Amino acid sequence: MLENWKASLQDLYNQMVEWRRDFHMNPELSFQEERTPKKIAEYLTSLGIEVKTGVGGRGVVGTIRGEKPGKTIALRADFDALPIQDEKDVPYKSTVAGVMHACGHDGHTSTLMGVAKVLSENREHLHGNVVLLHQHAEELAPGGAIAMVEDGCLEGVDVVFGTHLMSNAPYGVYAYRKGAMMAAGDAFVIKIQGKGGHGAQPHETVDAIAIGTQVVNQLQHIVSRQINPLKPAVVSIGSFHAGAALNVIADSAEIKGTVRTFDPEVRDHIEKEIKHIVENVCSAFHASAEVNYQRGYPAVVNHEKETEVFINVMKQSVGEDQLVNIDPIMGSEDFGYFIQNKPGMFFFTSAGNDEIGASYPHHHPRFDFDERAMLMAGNALLSITHHYLCEEQEKSEEKLLAEQA
Amino acid sequence: MLENWKASLQDLYNQMVEWRRDFHMNPELSFQEERTPKKIAEYLTSLGIEVKTGVGGRGVVGTIRGEKPGKTIALRADFDALPIQDEKDVPYKSTVAGVMHACGHDGHTSTLMGVAKVLSENREHLHGNVVLLHQHAEELAPGGAIAMVEDGCLEGVDVVFGTHLMSNAPYGVYAYRKGAMMAAGDAFVIKIQGKGGHGAQPHETVDAIAIGTQVVNQLQHIVSRQINPLKPAVVSIGSFHAGAALNVIADSAEIKGTVRTFDPEVRDHIEKEIKHIVENVCSAFHASAEVNYQRGYPAVVNHEKETEVFINVMKQSVGEDQLVNIDPIMGSEDFGYFIQNKPGMFFFTSAGNDEIGASYPHHHPRFDFDERAMLMAGNALLSITHHYLCEEQEKSEEKLLAEQA
Amino acid sequence: MLENWKASLQDLYNQMVEWRRDFHMNPELSFQEERTPKKIAEYLTSLGIEVKTGVGGRGVVGTIRGEKPGKTIALRADFDALPIQDEKDVPYKSTVAGVMHACGHDGHTSTLMGVAKVLSENREHLHGNVVLLHQHAEELAPGGAIAMVEDGCLEGVDVVFGTHLMSNAPYGVYAYRKGAMMAAGDAFVIKIQGKGGHGAQPHETVDAIAIGTQVVNQLQHIVSRQINPLKPAVVSIGSFHAGAALNVIADSAEIKGTVRTFDPEVRDHIEKEIKHIVENVCSAFHASAEVNYQRGYPAVVNHEKETEVFINVMKQSVGEDQLVNIDPIMGSEDFGYFIQNKPGMFFFTSAGNDEIGASYPHHHPRFDFDERAMLMAGNALLSITHHYLCEEQEKSEEKLLAEQA
Amino acid sequence: MLENWKASLQDLYNQMVEWRRDFHMNPELSFQEERTPKKIAEYLTSLGIEVKTGVGGRGVVGTIRGEKPGKTIALRADFDALPIQDEKDVPYKSTVAGVMHACGHDGHTSTLMGVAKVLSENREHLHGNVVLLHQHAEELAPGGAIAMVEDGCLEGVDVVFGTHLMSNAPYGVYAYRKGAMMAAGDAFVIKIQGKGGHGAQPHETVDAIAIGTQVVNQLQHIVSRQINPLKPAVVSIGSFHAGAALNVIADSAEIKGTVRTFDPEVRDHIEKEIKHIVENVCSAFHASAEVNYQRGYPAVVNHEKETEVFINVMKQSVGEDQLVNIDPIMGSEDFGYFIQNKPGMFFFTSAGNDEIGASYPHHHPRFDFDERAMLMAGNALLSITHHYLCEEQEKSEEKLLAEQA
Repeated sequence: MLENWKASLQDLYNQMVEWRRDFHMNPELSFQEERTPKKIAEYLTSLGIEVKTGVGGRGVVGTIRGEKPGKTIALRADFDALPIQDEKDVPYKSTVAGVMHACGHDGHTSTLMGVAKVLSENREHLHGNVVLLHQHAEELAPGGAIAMVEDGCLEGVDVVFGTHLMSNAPYGVYAYRKGAMMAAGDAFVIKIQGKGGHGAQPHETVDAIAIGTQVVNQLQHIVSRQINPLKPAVVSIGSFHAGAALNVIADSAEIKGTVRTFDPEVRDHIEKEIKHIVENVCSAFHASAEVNYQRGYPAVVNHEKETEVFINVMKQSVGEDQLVNIDPIMGSEDFGYFIQNKPGMFFFTSAGNDEIGASYPHHHPRFDFDERAMLMAGNALLSITHHYLCEEQEKSEEKLLAEQA
Repeated sequence: MLENWKASLQDLYNQMVEWRRDFHMNPELSFQEERTPKKIAEYLTSLGIEVKTGVGGRGVVGTIRGEKPGKTIALRADFDALPIQDEKDVPYKSTVAGVMHACGHDGHTSTLMGVAKVLSENREHLHGNVVLLHQHAEELAPGGAIAMVEDGCLEGVDVVFGTHLMSNAPYGVYAYRKGAMMAAGDAFVIKIQGKGGHGAQPHETVDAIAIGTQVVNQLQHIVSRQINPLKPAVVSIGSFHAGAALNVIADSAEIKGTVRTFDPEVRDHIEKEIKHIVENVCSAFHASAEVNYQRGYPAVVNHEKETEVFINVMKQSVGEDQLVNIDPIMGSEDFGYFIQNKPGMFFFTSAGNDEIGASYPHHHPRFDFDERAMLMAGNALLSITHHYLCEEQEKSEEKLLAEQA
Repeated sequence: MLENWKASLQDLYNQMVEWRRDFHMNPELSFQEERTPKKIAEYLTSLGIEVKTGVGGRGVVGTIRGEKPGKTIALRADFDALPIQDEKDVPYKSTVAGVMHACGHDGHTSTLMGVAKVLSENREHLHGNVVLLHQHAEELAPGGAIAMVEDGCLEGVDVVFGTHLMSNAPYGVYAYRKGAMMAAGDAFVIKIQGKGGHGAQPHETVDAIAIGTQVVNQLQHIVSRQINPLKPAVVSIGSFHAGAALNVIADSAEIKGTVRTFDPEVRDHIEKEIKHIVENVCSAFHASAEVNYQRGYPAVVNHEKETEVFINVMKQSVGEDQLVNIDPIMGSEDFGYFIQNKPGMFFFTSAGNDEIGASYPHHHPRFDFDERAMLMAGNALLSITHHYLCEEQEKSEEKLLAEQA
Repeated sequence: MLENWKASLQDLYNQMVEWRRDFHMNPELSFQEERTPKKIAEYLTSLGIEVKTGVGGRGVVGTIRGEKPGKTIALRADFDALPIQDEKDVPYKSTVAGVMHACGHDGHTSTLMGVAKVLSENREHLHGNVVLLHQHAEELAPGGAIAMVEDGCLEGVDVVFGTHLMSNAPYGVYAYRKGAMMAAGDAFVIKIQGKGGHGAQPHETVDAIAIGTQVVNQLQHIVSRQINPLKPAVVSIGSFHAGAALNVIADSAEIKGTVRTFDPEVRDHIEKEIKHIVENVCSAFHASAEVNYQRGYPAVVNHEKETEVFINVMKQSVGEDQLVNIDPIMGSEDFGYFIQNKPGMFFFTSAGNDEIGASYPHHHPRFDFDERAMLMAGNALLSITHHYLCEEQEKSEEKLLAEQA
């Protein structure tokens, strides 16, 4: 049956390309999406799918109810664009100045719309339900995912899967990783308050620059001494600003930085230690300090069991050759919120193609992708859905029958 | 005879006050002085004194030639004002918006003009010559002194003296110090060039902030480890600027600071070591660096012999009670250039007086001084001149006569 | 056939225990082994196996030649003991004061002797040869492995496998990891030469302690800033010694530390950067420095293909339940030299058992292991050997026959 | 009359040399003096002077009561030797192995004995009393001075003077300084307690070396940032010891150092800040710390008025040519305790002479001094005593008589 589904999706390919190009020409910034969710909702509704709009703000959630009882699988696609000027020379170039789908979310959306159509036409075979998570605002913290989760989009869901098109690897493979795959990214701002004065009279001041440099120095110890070397972590200072005149000792300093981690305990530890070190080092020199630590997206940590399911399902569906086990990457993605709440996993679908100009990195003004990757992404989502809502149920039915016999 | 001179100066007091208030109402910024040097030159010329104008730019040099041969003593007074808005409520308030004599140079000038008149009327008693150094641009580096020296104003001069009115001690004393009395003040700018990059990928960058903080840290060692603790020195960082975004590693950092010293060897050492440390620390982390070290005024280091002369002369002239031996101060003054080239010394003449509002620090918008201090300053200059051009010669004449007898 | 081999090994179990206890009672320190290699060589010879002794010093290499042509697989077991006093209370306690098999090498040796007997009795079924690598001196750098490799022990070898008993996990599983599994461990000694002097006169000295502390401080940057956060690395200072009297500035400092890495490029980088930072920081303060960096064992980096073979073979042989995929560990082992030269892999065989007192960590005076783990280890080596020398050949023979048909 | 006193002392010169050489041949270590105080006490008693022995332990205090009422002046001489082997080749070489008068205290003692004889013979002329402070144990903290003061040796004393022979300047001058002349010298020991562990597992440790290096680094800031640059101060680390093995992270570190200051507020500040910085930096990294700060001798801070007295008296007594105003020196001396409690001053009497081998620094095994310096020292003490107990009284008597007339 999975093969039939794939064939159906193949038949929809031109339609998916059309959708994608329409979205590409009409990109909308995070938290400002209007046309896109409206289009999605209209299409899902047209398929007879139950649709909730405004989920967590601007999210669209469709539910395809299978005719037989079973699990509920959620599939996620984000749909926001970026504040980048499209510099590509293609007919489907963005029509909105300074806004562009430079990360492939148009492709994610179109893919999931195609998948929705195929699955909605196969309700009779589904043991369980499919929840379509069309998410807004992935690109801008705090992101749409957390709001959709808080708005109940995962209620009743058993597993959740998602994929991201990836232009920096040539079209043709799926990339996955068990466990931590993408980093949590946090931000912090340290404000040190000393006491200014004349450069020739340091003893009458509390020198915010001298103290700030000690803070930066001590923060190096977190990664070099306090974190398990097997657990990747980064503490980087991005800006240090203090002082106006060369002969006046600065009364304050502002230091900003970012933290990247995979392990939640490491993340907690670093947040705690940054505050602790800043407080104590400043106190050592009679300065006061304020640390504002803002958590960004959590790490994307794929669940072991669901990743095994993905591997096994995809081996059968497309063969081992198309599967690549990758190292973790330091980028962030708010899909992590979904799999903090439910079992699930996230994978990449490669979409680069030098021949058609799909060779620029994500967020580049000339970013593009090989549209065939939408079919690949869709096939993967169909395969996984088939596993949870058909294959397993059938097997257990057979088993039940066998036991009853 | 000295007593006669003092009496003559006393008679000029009202005139000196008048001059001073005229200069006060017509202040001129450093390197922009026109009216002031013109007034000085006209007056000296009217006294029959040889006058050179435009010395080193805008300086005025008068020469009073004594009728007998002997030494040449130079007396210096600076005449520029400051870019400060006069906020005093007095009839002689500045008439130039944003410009003000907030450091007493108007008083120095009037004092030396009075002294010039007294001495020019006593040529017959002078064994040697008096050079009047009316200097422009003391307030703004590189200052007028060095240019006047280079323009030959000290040619033929044997000793050089100068004084500064000082509002932060009550009227009535002379403050001096043998050796280093005022600090040399230098400035430096360090530019560190690393390699920027993503905050999550520190290993692909050369982190200019991390390196810059090490530079600041290491520079502390100059004062704490490398300088004789008996020789005062300060190395202060006044500004540190690097980086724009919290999650982007900065490619460059700019660090500015000031250096204060009294001892020329210490000064040389610090300049050399700042460059040496910056270069090596940056090299340790594969960054490049540029250090721009700008020397400001040298320290005012009073010559021992001339300071002894001052002490002895003043003890006799005004009594020990009016003499105060002070600690060095960290402020700078370009008089140092004169006594780098010729023997001499510099002293303060106290001029504060709470009762008449002369209680604000120098460079304050309400700065003022007790005008009687001009008489004190003038008496001191006369006393010193008398010592070199009358007393000594007379003694040696008597001695010669005695030997010939 | 593999099942027959396992049964044969099972029959040898009591013999293996006897050997092991004999070795345990007669431990020999690294590079001082005499009795142990002699016993091994005698036994292998008694089995009709070709034996070379003194390989790379004290290694024993046996070669079992199969009757059919094929690949050559090498199996490695180390046989040295440690300078630790045995504190166990067992009949087979060490009889040598201060020397003890506290890491299970006695078990490795006995296991391989048992495996040798089984395989030597099955020459007719072997398509290819088995090389038995009985290695001396694993516990003491530079280790016996590198010398044996240089002495040609891997000539003609196609793949090499080895295992280590592991008391810190309960008896019953095999632990493996694809790629880097055990760290490279290096050592360094930094000698800083400054210039001593009186504590009250720092400016006449080059303060080796102040400089040494800067060196330690700067070395933190290697891990925190220069290494890819995804590549584990540790730079630890273990000792810092300088100075005798509290009021005398130390003229020299000695700093010692260790480096742990998995990636050879990271290792190279750290060695280079330690030297570079030390040199430049010392130069910044006019001290000289000497860095003696001694490479220890390389990382144990399991080859991907051979690890897959291991996984598949063991799944069939013992089932998936007995396989554990582990995180890398920071300990070192000189097996890395073998698989730097030939394809291969290394795995752990768990051997802990609280009930019999086998619950102490390696190198502990009460270390012991569950002797049944020797059978497990032997079964794994037999399974792998069977794969390379029987199964594969049989399959290809069948294939050839089929093609010929 | 002073001239008579000087003549009397001159007559005693041979006797003083004899005493000095006797003491030199029989040196006694600090707090172990027996023979020396006995000899002193016997001699003073023989002169009819009131003598107290065992003052503050081993001090000897003689009181010469003048026949007229007046002030009480105390004169101090220390009498202990050093644990140094005498390497001079002179007839009066030390006869005690490993003990030597290598700092001239033998000369101080003999000088004061001579002065005592002269003054005891002039009681009729003395308006007031002379207290002879023969002090033990100057060389070893906590020193004898503080104990003698606590034992009441300064009761009734109005002013106190002392001198030190000084081999490092040629015989012939007195060296003085108003205010701080010799530094306070303190000692501190910092113990940092972290948590040890394996070098490859820094995250499971609290790395005492990494933390200790930060402590040393931060302590630099005290001098470079917190102390008035005009007030000399030194904080030097003399020893840093931590760790045994290169691959084991040290659990503790011991750091020792010295502090030198002149200003009591600076001294207080540094003691406070060392503790504060150590505590906070250790706390920043979860280590605990203990700081043991031991105050040594206070600075020798000459009182202004008494120094003026010294200068004026000596100008008249020996002429200005023999007076040298010196920079402060970093060495310590427990005379500071006396002038913390009473007005007074301390001066050096130069005693070097290359021709007779008196050219080695103090505490050198070949240290010696020109014995004529004892006469110079004695003349100074007589001059000062004359000033306080004769000259002043006579003047005031004359004044009284004049007023009454």
